[in-house]
Amino acid sequence: MAEWELLDYLSPSLSNKDLSKDKALDEFLLIQKYFSNIGSAFLAEHNVVNSVGDDASVISSNHNTQQINSLDTSIEGVHFLSSMSSEDIAYRSCVVALSDLAACGARPKWYSIALTIPEVDEHWLRGFATGLQTFSDEYRIPLIGGDTTKGTLSITVQVMGEVNTGKAILRSNAKAGQLVFVSGVIGKAFLGLNEFKKTFSSNQNTLSYLRPEAKIKLGLELVGIASAAIDISDGLLQDVNLICQSSNLGAEIFLDKIPTPSTEKTLQLINSGDDYELCFTADENKHEQLMKVSKKLDIPITAIGRIMSSKELVLYDSTNTRIELNSGYKHF
Amino acid sequence: MAEWELLDYLSPSLSNKDLSKDKALDEFLLIQKYFSNIGSAFLAEHNVVNSVGDDASVISSNHNTQQINSLDTSIEGVHFLSSMSSEDIAYRSCVVALSDLAACGARPKWYSIALTIPEVDEHWLRGFATGLQTFSDEYRIPLIGGDTTKGTLSITVQVMGEVNTGKAILRSNAKAGQLVFVSGVIGKAFLGLNEFKKTFSSNQNTLSYLRPEAKIKLGLELVGIASAAIDISDGLLQDVNLICQSSNLGAEIFLDKIPTPSTEKTLQLINSGDDYELCFTADENKHEQLMKVSKKLDIPITAIGRIMSSKELVLYDSTNTRIELNSGYKHF
Repeated sequence: MAEWELLDYLSPSLSNKDLSKDKALDEFLLIQKYFSNIGSAFLAEHNVVNSVGDDASVISSNHNTQQINSLDTSIEGVHFLSSMSSEDIAYRSCVVALSDLAACGARPKWYSIALTIPEVDEHWLRGFATGLQTFSDEYRIPLIGGDTTKGTLSITVQVMGEVNTGKAILRSNAKAGQLVFVSGVIGKAFLGLNEFKKTFSSNQNTLSYLRPEAKIKLGLELVGIASAAIDISDGLLQDVNLICQSSNLGAEIFLDKIPTPSTEKTLQLINSGDDYELCFTADENKHEQLMKVSKKLDIPITAIGRIMSSKELVLYDSTNTRIELNSGYKHF
Repeated sequence: MAEWELLDYLSPSLSNKDLSKDKALDEFLLIQKYFSNIGSAFLAEHNVVNSVGDDASVISSNHNTQQINSLDTSIEGVHFLSSMSSEDIAYRSCVVALSDLAACGARPKWYSIALTIPEVDEHWLRGFATGLQTFSDEYRIPLIGGDTTKGTLSITVQVMGEVNTGKAILRSNAKAGQLVFVSGVIGKAFLGLNEFKKTFSSNQNTLSYLRPEAKIKLGLELVGIASAAIDISDGLLQDVNLICQSSNLGAEIFLDKIPTPSTEKTLQLINSGDDYELCFTADENKHEQLMKVSKKLDIPITAIGRIMSSKELVLYDSTNTRIELNSGYKHF
């Protein structure tokens, strides 16, 4: 499915992430099996261009532009902590959804929200609305509608964006030999979350978790440079793996090259997710152009590996020794 | 907000519906207060035409057409029973969302789903996918994407449709003196639900609840005839009241004229909701044209009252005696 982001199901942000997720990956494939191709006979007549396995769906709206649609649910205790302020919960849930548009190189247009709340608490609602307003102002998009229901706290955000026709960056377009890049620093959100669990305060360190940034500007710059892209929500290796799966290829990634907040480069840290940085592939000769983008936007861009024709994701340590990963990374 | 359907919050289908909902209506107004106008400074630049208080949002896509977007959440124990088959749960959740497009006179284009499930149960998922496929086939629209998360069972369905520019039927366009009509028979779903609670079986009687129909064909016929429309999800009086509120008017409704499955016309029955029939307003001289539509589609269309300039919804019994309603129906 287009952006059928089933990994959400298997790697909730707040549980311990590890690499032994065979059962979870089986479940992922099971869900994917049942939800692929529903109503696919009607895709063409409704101008749906891409509806399988990407960050978002692509729909032709007129000759010049295509629409990019994505839907993301954030659930209390899974995607955010109930101890977070409603302002942060609102803001974070929206950014998480918008990040899929960044990965496609899309311009955001508008969003809608389905909010499920256990009770009507005016103070909480006021904060939630403030979080939405801050989000709207920062990304310059209106909230155009929604639904409110009573139940366990949960927020589903639908975002709509657009690209010039044919210019969406898809997951499926990586080519063997291309370099794999990441933006920013990986693991900051993980450290921020740990800090928040101790201090319950909003500060320089916890903001990386509480207030992530959807890399919209970077995504727009990557159009025409990157061949494939994904936002890092589930964990770097899992997300690189999704590019590999969609592109029917593999990759080699060098642990040492992955930019982290300190010299520590544990698997747990690099695969913690929640950073909403972009991971993308590009020809080696685009390196200089990418460094200009990096300078222009003041965002680090780092090559961390290479796409391979072997259908497997392989991770090497600093001595070029292969680090054993579970079978989920041998996906074919 | 466009289709900010907060009444969902206050009148869950499965709880007892009554007319003493002052507290709930206060909560409704509170939520509405906080979620109106978020990012409204950016509506125009993103071509959003209508984003306040309707079944769906209206967005201009090109010169000829406008897009109609709506989002609806269905929650276990609130909008459906856990004893329902996953096939019925999927089908019903999608129809409930699509029904908003019917009320706007829109042609359905595609849909996406955010599914929250407590566990991966292959049998349940297979049924759910079958329900989606049946829905896709009946309304000829593809599922283009979605998200799956782990948690309390909940389904958010986003539907996208289109209308010819300027032709969306809005809630806000009723005029004093126009007649109020309903399609079909009111209260069938309520009886179907009661029957299902006893028999837990899918049969002729329970289908009205388990498998409602989104009145898309009727909505399309009403374009150019109806001035305002809403789908009856929360309860007939509440939904008429929403047309009145949006149009800044009132209405008088005659209990005796409301078509019900038997001679019984209790407030509970007529205000039970879940029928997904359409309630709409039209000039009196459109009556004959409406009877032709009724015959063509084989759907009863009945005049049940009239829009009034007084800003209050008034209900009369068979002796033309006014039936006392709570203050929520005096909304200004």
